[in-house]
Amino acid sequence: MTRVTRWAAILILLAPGWPAAAQTVRFEPAAGTPTFAVREPILRVKPGDTVETRTFSRPGDYYDPEVAGPWPGEVGPFHIEGAAPGDTLVVRILKLTPNRDIAISNVTPGGISAVAADSRTRMLNEDLPARRFVWRLDRERMVGILDLPHSASKRIELPLAPMLGRVAVAPAGEEAWGGLWPGNFGGNMDAADVREGTTVYLPVFHEGALFYFGDFHALQGDGEIAGSGLESTADVTFQFDLQKGKRIRWPRFEDATHIMVAGSVRPLGDAVRIAYVELIEWLVADYGFEKMEAYQVVSQAGVLRVANMVDPNYTVVAKFPKRSLPPPR
Amino acid sequence: MTRVTRWAAILILLAPGWPAAAQTVRFEPAAGTPTFAVREPILRVKPGDTVETRTFSRPGDYYDPEVAGPWPGEVGPFHIEGAAPGDTLVVRILKLTPNRDIAISNVTPGGISAVAADSRTRMLNEDLPARRFVWRLDRERMVGILDLPHSASKRIELPLAPMLGRVAVAPAGEEAWGGLWPGNFGGNMDAADVREGTTVYLPVFHEGALFYFGDFHALQGDGEIAGSGLESTADVTFQFDLQKGKRIRWPRFEDATHIMVAGSVRPLGDAVRIAYVELIEWLVADYGFEKMEAYQVVSQAGVLRVANMVDPNYTVVAKFPKRSLPPPR
Amino acid sequence: MTRVTRWAAILILLAPGWPAAAQTVRFEPAAGTPTFAVREPILRVKPGDTVETRTFSRPGDYYDPEVAGPWPGEVGPFHIEGAAPGDTLVVRILKLTPNRDIAISNVTPGGISAVAADSRTRMLNEDLPARRFVWRLDRERMVGILDLPHSASKRIELPLAPMLGRVAVAPAGEEAWGGLWPGNFGGNMDAADVREGTTVYLPVFHEGALFYFGDFHALQGDGEIAGSGLESTADVTFQFDLQKGKRIRWPRFEDATHIMVAGSVRPLGDAVRIAYVELIEWLVADYGFEKMEAYQVVSQAGVLRVANMVDPNYTVVAKFPKRSLPPPR
Amino acid sequence: MTRVTRWAAILILLAPGWPAAAQTVRFEPAAGTPTFAVREPILRVKPGDTVETRTFSRPGDYYDPEVAGPWPGEVGPFHIEGAAPGDTLVVRILKLTPNRDIAISNVTPGGISAVAADSRTRMLNEDLPARRFVWRLDRERMVGILDLPHSASKRIELPLAPMLGRVAVAPAGEEAWGGLWPGNFGGNMDAADVREGTTVYLPVFHEGALFYFGDFHALQGDGEIAGSGLESTADVTFQFDLQKGKRIRWPRFEDATHIMVAGSVRPLGDAVRIAYVELIEWLVADYGFEKMEAYQVVSQAGVLRVANMVDPNYTVVAKFPKRSLPPPR
Repeated sequence: MTRVTRWAAILILLAPGWPAAAQTVRFEPAAGTPTFAVREPILRVKPGDTVETRTFSRPGDYYDPEVAGPWPGEVGPFHIEGAAPGDTLVVRILKLTPNRDIAISNVTPGGISAVAADSRTRMLNEDLPARRFVWRLDRERMVGILDLPHSASKRIELPLAPMLGRVAVAPAGEEAWGGLWPGNFGGNMDAADVREGTTVYLPVFHEGALFYFGDFHALQGDGEIAGSGLESTADVTFQFDLQKGKRIRWPRFEDATHIMVAGSVRPLGDAVRIAYVELIEWLVADYGFEKMEAYQVVSQAGVLRVANMVDPNYTVVAKFPKRSLPPPR
Repeated sequence: MTRVTRWAAILILLAPGWPAAAQTVRFEPAAGTPTFAVREPILRVKPGDTVETRTFSRPGDYYDPEVAGPWPGEVGPFHIEGAAPGDTLVVRILKLTPNRDIAISNVTPGGISAVAADSRTRMLNEDLPARRFVWRLDRERMVGILDLPHSASKRIELPLAPMLGRVAVAPAGEEAWGGLWPGNFGGNMDAADVREGTTVYLPVFHEGALFYFGDFHALQGDGEIAGSGLESTADVTFQFDLQKGKRIRWPRFEDATHIMVAGSVRPLGDAVRIAYVELIEWLVADYGFEKMEAYQVVSQAGVLRVANMVDPNYTVVAKFPKRSLPPPR
Repeated sequence: MTRVTRWAAILILLAPGWPAAAQTVRFEPAAGTPTFAVREPILRVKPGDTVETRTFSRPGDYYDPEVAGPWPGEVGPFHIEGAAPGDTLVVRILKLTPNRDIAISNVTPGGISAVAADSRTRMLNEDLPARRFVWRLDRERMVGILDLPHSASKRIELPLAPMLGRVAVAPAGEEAWGGLWPGNFGGNMDAADVREGTTVYLPVFHEGALFYFGDFHALQGDGEIAGSGLESTADVTFQFDLQKGKRIRWPRFEDATHIMVAGSVRPLGDAVRIAYVELIEWLVADYGFEKMEAYQVVSQAGVLRVANMVDPNYTVVAKFPKRSLPPPR
Repeated sequence: MTRVTRWAAILILLAPGWPAAAQTVRFEPAAGTPTFAVREPILRVKPGDTVETRTFSRPGDYYDPEVAGPWPGEVGPFHIEGAAPGDTLVVRILKLTPNRDIAISNVTPGGISAVAADSRTRMLNEDLPARRFVWRLDRERMVGILDLPHSASKRIELPLAPMLGRVAVAPAGEEAWGGLWPGNFGGNMDAADVREGTTVYLPVFHEGALFYFGDFHALQGDGEIAGSGLESTADVTFQFDLQKGKRIRWPRFEDATHIMVAGSVRPLGDAVRIAYVELIEWLVADYGFEKMEAYQVVSQAGVLRVANMVDPNYTVVAKFPKRSLPPPR
């Protein structure tokens, strides 16, 4: 089922009754991938299995406190046994904790930005200057601390809110998306709701689903306007499951209080439309609402988060409070 | 200072040491105005004064439980003594409570919508059908209740979150905006953050500032996607103040936890840009941040609310947590 | 019918059989208006009448070759006898010729632009520098000539294409739009198709229609990306007519080869939608097309002009070739 | 140099002095590809070579007059000898003529559209109905004829304007775009300016450039609003050349009268920005203009074509008249 590959050292921690019973697998990533295009699995698990792992980094890469090197890429893909096109992959984020003491945020001239000219919103104005910010992560107090040498207050402290920028399945067909892209396959959504305690639902387009994750942010504001959060690395534990024959069009999340849909497209208003229309159709399909009545109640209790307004597609998360919903059918 | 006009009966409740001391004025609106174009004040108050009033409604208007009649309009303008172009008007919302037991939300074919074709986002598709929703407001439990005859659950209950859709000063120059417009003068922002406990800051374009308010929503989701919230009426208490010589470009809000800027324009992404750039410039001007450092910290701790995505301009509110800020200068 | 006002000296050139017969009126504007808010006519004409006039300018205003002063405003409103809400005003542009030897184009820091940050598309980037361009108009050869001291070629010569940036009726209701706004009332559309030989159709919202014109451009590129064309002054001859009871929603144009609709809104894609959907509905209503068949033929033969991408609303003109149409019904 | 592959039968028509001299090669495509992801060339040519070929179709595919089958895909890639990343590929379209007597245009419910809800601009409205239009192509008179059974005129005739919807090089890196995507690599731009007589310039990202073409439209309106033009097949002759070490960021076109840049992104306004900013930078780099002077002259003489407003990226072509330019440096 699981196997030691040249990619990774795998330790089966708990495997009573193998192969029928769910297992907890320890997976150490040995490399990252810069795209969602890889089709060769680096790990094979079954529905119900738990994987304890971490985001990938190697010395001298982007997280180097001295000089930011290349992006280490996301980890994957994991093959989930039995997943087939038309199913929904269920990913429970059981744990997500930062595992280093710094985080990096870079501003590069002409780099992606929601509030400055970049390569997709071209302007004649001069680019912003380069700037590199190295945050200290106080993991005891769960705060990020940044020196502000040019500002009056000299320092700021912000509470951390760990999240995974990227969770994905392999995109449909032969399309090979770069790692910066979010879409209906998940990807680089940069959604702060993808955090410990959240369950992520992804549409399955290929046999085995082929799950990827990475791009840990110790903290990130709505819209990720400078193009990066507090980029760092983390320990993460996933539990995988499958909803056979359940077809969804866009990623869904669920936490203690809300059900959510993530829509990713440009412009921002169209991402709002995808997220809200999918949420309404979800209320119709799973909670027994008539369409116009679902439209009405979402209009009154819907919550939006602008996840990112910098990536090739923008991502918006639309939410509905679970306490006002009937049980799903 | 204050005077009884043909528009309103005014009762001076507390006036020790008049005219120097701040007063509490009771104001009963006798009419609404459908635009932000009126220049003749219906009430005159001083900085420091408190006004106890209510949103306007008359029998047979929009809030009629049987048949929705015409919109009653917003109330105003109030003249604030000493306000001059280049100042900032300060409006503290001391109280905002629903004062009737129903709220209305209408869907009209071709009417404004974030998720259906309308007159500004024209499509060849057929319009949505008409639908009128009459919510019961349980003011004891502060919940709104809607019967859902066509849905499996038959009923939904949502916690109320009272807000004012419209707070405004008279717009700059001779422009006479219709009541549906938000802009740099405030107006129909439909921002859920304009609620009890919030202080609203508005740029002053005319002598006396000329303040308007109205469009009470007992509840409204982010984006107000069906074009209306739980439209109802409320008792409201404002306290007015002035920041002389303080020039702001867009409305600002402040509550217990956040400072906020409201940007209003189409498309949605440009509303985000206005709100965030103004927020960054606010951190620079009042909190001593260098621009690139302000950009960095807003990118990590900024919060967005999509207030409305249906009005002639869309409104986005960008927020920054006060606990991470130094004291303003 | 026509009268000498304090605003203007009017000479009735041809008036046989007055008042029944159409007249040619000479009108010298004595002032400009900066908004489309004026309701008091400065001229009264009848359907069929021709008005020979000019755009307004006064010494020291924007067209001063030395220092650009204030904008002189547009001319109007003209009252067209018999025009009532629900009618369509017909304006034939019989003549439009530049009447001075220079044109001005200003770039101001932070000023409106399609390709630089401005007050509606806010960015953190630094503003473009100020620059003022004074074009010579060779009216014999109908070319504009600009010295380019900083460029290798030192000079450029462009063929002129005279157009009126603003043709309008008074907007609906009490709304008082500033002169920079285009909309369903026409206004500052900056459409190069509004030129000699074009017939303009405008919806009538007020008795008398209340027609305005101005903002002559000797030449302007698609999108008017720097926020101004070759701004100058012109002699213009209009002939007015009415289509009683013919209701249109957006301005229409017609020239020798095309019928056209001008849609004005942000963002640009929604302006395209208004223009094309209106064009399709025009084919349905007046040319006997079924909707899906109209959609198909417009998809194959429709032509778009991006008129402006800088004004508070963007304007797009959608066109269909007349030679492929049956006669209108 | 060229070789017979299992993909194609190749006939060397003229080859005096081979291999040094330019050749004319006849290439019969034996298959289509649905993506721009193929890296294995199906033809190898040298700079200066001419290729006489045709777009691909097979019986029962999309162009079947009875029932539209699957899309046959585009043809490619061609390997151009000596092309390396950082070069510019030059493609002269010497000939482009329709080679069948029908063209198809399909409207599918929920299918891509500029003026109806689709999968990227989601709406709650019902989808448009399905409709299939079969145009007759009169290649003698070069007109397309469509029966309009539901319209009063019963028939329409439109002059043809043959164009290639897709010309591309292999996209940068490992990204594997589906055939519907346009981008900086060209692709599905659906630009009517890509026609007989036009020279296309494409940035080279891979050794051999890897050129693709296809998606012939006998006619297509601006924006391609129904998602398809008069889709048909054609004979086409290309001549290839290289500009070694000339780096461009976006596709450029040149015809008898204009130089042009094609920008592809959503939303439409950002596509305009890319196209115009690139055009301005082209004037600066190759024609000796100072930036602000280039901005000024493009603002006055720039021409825009909205190529498509339906594909995953929208494409806009910005043009400048050659007769007003100095010779390129």
